[in-house]
Amino acid sequence: MIEAAASRLAGHVRETPLLSAPGLDRIAGRRVLVKAECLQHTGSFKARGGWAAVSARGAGARGVIALSSGNHAQGVARAAAAFGLPAVIVMPTDAPGPKIDGTRALGAELVLYDRATEDREALAAGIAAARGLTLIRPFDDPQVIAGQGTVGLELAAQAAAAGVTDADVLIPCGGGGLTAGVALALEARAPGLRVRPVEPEGFDDTARSLAAGRIVANDARAGSLCDAILTPSPGRITFPVMARLCGPGLVVTEGEALRAMAAAFTQLRIVLEPGGAVALAAALFRAEAVTGDAVIVIGSGGNVAAETFRMALGQDGEAR
Amino acid sequence: MIEAAASRLAGHVRETPLLSAPGLDRIAGRRVLVKAECLQHTGSFKARGGWAAVSARGAGARGVIALSSGNHAQGVARAAAAFGLPAVIVMPTDAPGPKIDGTRALGAELVLYDRATEDREALAAGIAAARGLTLIRPFDDPQVIAGQGTVGLELAAQAAAAGVTDADVLIPCGGGGLTAGVALALEARAPGLRVRPVEPEGFDDTARSLAAGRIVANDARAGSLCDAILTPSPGRITFPVMARLCGPGLVVTEGEALRAMAAAFTQLRIVLEPGGAVALAAALFRAEAVTGDAVIVIGSGGNVAAETFRMALGQDGEAR
Repeated sequence: MIEAAASRLAGHVRETPLLSAPGLDRIAGRRVLVKAECLQHTGSFKARGGWAAVSARGAGARGVIALSSGNHAQGVARAAAAFGLPAVIVMPTDAPGPKIDGTRALGAELVLYDRATEDREALAAGIAAARGLTLIRPFDDPQVIAGQGTVGLELAAQAAAAGVTDADVLIPCGGGGLTAGVALALEARAPGLRVRPVEPEGFDDTARSLAAGRIVANDARAGSLCDAILTPSPGRITFPVMARLCGPGLVVTEGEALRAMAAAFTQLRIVLEPGGAVALAAALFRAEAVTGDAVIVIGSGGNVAAETFRMALGQDGEAR
Repeated sequence: MIEAAASRLAGHVRETPLLSAPGLDRIAGRRVLVKAECLQHTGSFKARGGWAAVSARGAGARGVIALSSGNHAQGVARAAAAFGLPAVIVMPTDAPGPKIDGTRALGAELVLYDRATEDREALAAGIAAARGLTLIRPFDDPQVIAGQGTVGLELAAQAAAAGVTDADVLIPCGGGGLTAGVALALEARAPGLRVRPVEPEGFDDTARSLAAGRIVANDARAGSLCDAILTPSPGRITFPVMARLCGPGLVVTEGEALRAMAAAFTQLRIVLEPGGAVALAAALFRAEAVTGDAVIVIGSGGNVAAETFRMALGQDGEAR
């Protein structure tokens, strides 16, 4: 399915570069390779899963609907526009400005809801039923997982070209679509690369689920700058894949994510959002929990409000 | 020479991506393609010219010396380190912090001078003579121009793949090494792509020289955030090339450069420095002076102090 998704995506998503900088290697104490999915169309890997899912639905769909804080929204909206399908996106009112603007600019219809008081699942189900729209889930959808898995196909080839065949692969993890998809791709193409999910403190449902051997949920639903990866618990489809293939999860603080954003700014000249920077944060600031001479990191997205980025640049004395 | 340089550079510099975003097309009123040289090693295209020049000098050199506000410095320092040669960099005291730090981190010896009171040419010549070092000029060196020209070889192929064979190519221009090198490469590989230098207001020596048909100089030597492209006048080698091959120059304000940095942040998730953003600024905010259905822009560098980038993000109401 991942290879089939890659065929459908060819020419419609970018092969993102695997970047490095001596300054990052020095901080981490080992070689660091960063897969810059923030340079993907729509600013995150979600353009892959969105395209894979919408293209798999074929011409029969009357339109699509998605629940998202903004990255999945843009991935689905972009694909729907390309296939001439209407797209409705159900998005929290506190989503970052650029994500709301970006989704609207792609031609999608936005329905905003209050994260604290409204049931987004019921809201979306109601609209889907009334208008005959197909729901594209953000992670618990085989085609979405296959689309995100194309990151892993690229990574296997790029890591081999860089001479890295044995390393931890740190991945920002929300519901686990990217993590599970990449793990499946690497199982086939680069079995020496070990996938490990990374989450922000207080939202480490996947790390705790992997440790417990069963799905457990977060207490909190909101309250982190890492909006892209705040899911209540790993998915029913993604968790068994992660339980079989992924190493122990890593957890970083919000402050570490902001410092990783500053390091990516100075050393790689790329823009990462907080949720997209947690894996780099683990590589740089939790080095003792990582194994191997080299570490691969996915920088999964770069849709961040200017105000948040300005705050990140104020965090790091090195980023003058 | 450009093709020979490309052979020596293979595996040592990155083929940088040609990026685009619907949001930029909307602002410019035409298709915009951005060659992201800020993603190059050392954060600018200067890694190419530095490698080309140092590799061409061969094993005979006892060491190299360069004058630079920071990007050429890092390009030369990186290449010298790879070839096991000592590197001395003569740099103004007011160079941006990341450029000073980056150059030092690459193992170069720094000699700082005061832009207003010291003669950097005499300073460098003295050190070069005393220590037997080879001077690598920032633009008036055929091997440096050939190295920068490899951007043009990549661009010709990438633009053709994107279906663009007839467009203005806007290039941030200091002494003209990149501009002349790319113009020579495109003359051979993509004659429908017309190179046009872009400079900041008050430092438009190349635009005025092209208009006058002879080299004229700027009055000011400093006083712009666009530190990377503040040369007194076009080079003796680069100017005749530009006069033969390049279209009229474009000029933008410092404020427009800062707004272009904000647009690149929001739309492409890349970091541009002010001098590296002037071509994008011309594409976005001087659209009436650009010709064609598409425009190609080189984002030439991304080594910018956090304080300056924070200021740029405060400039644009859209970049919330």
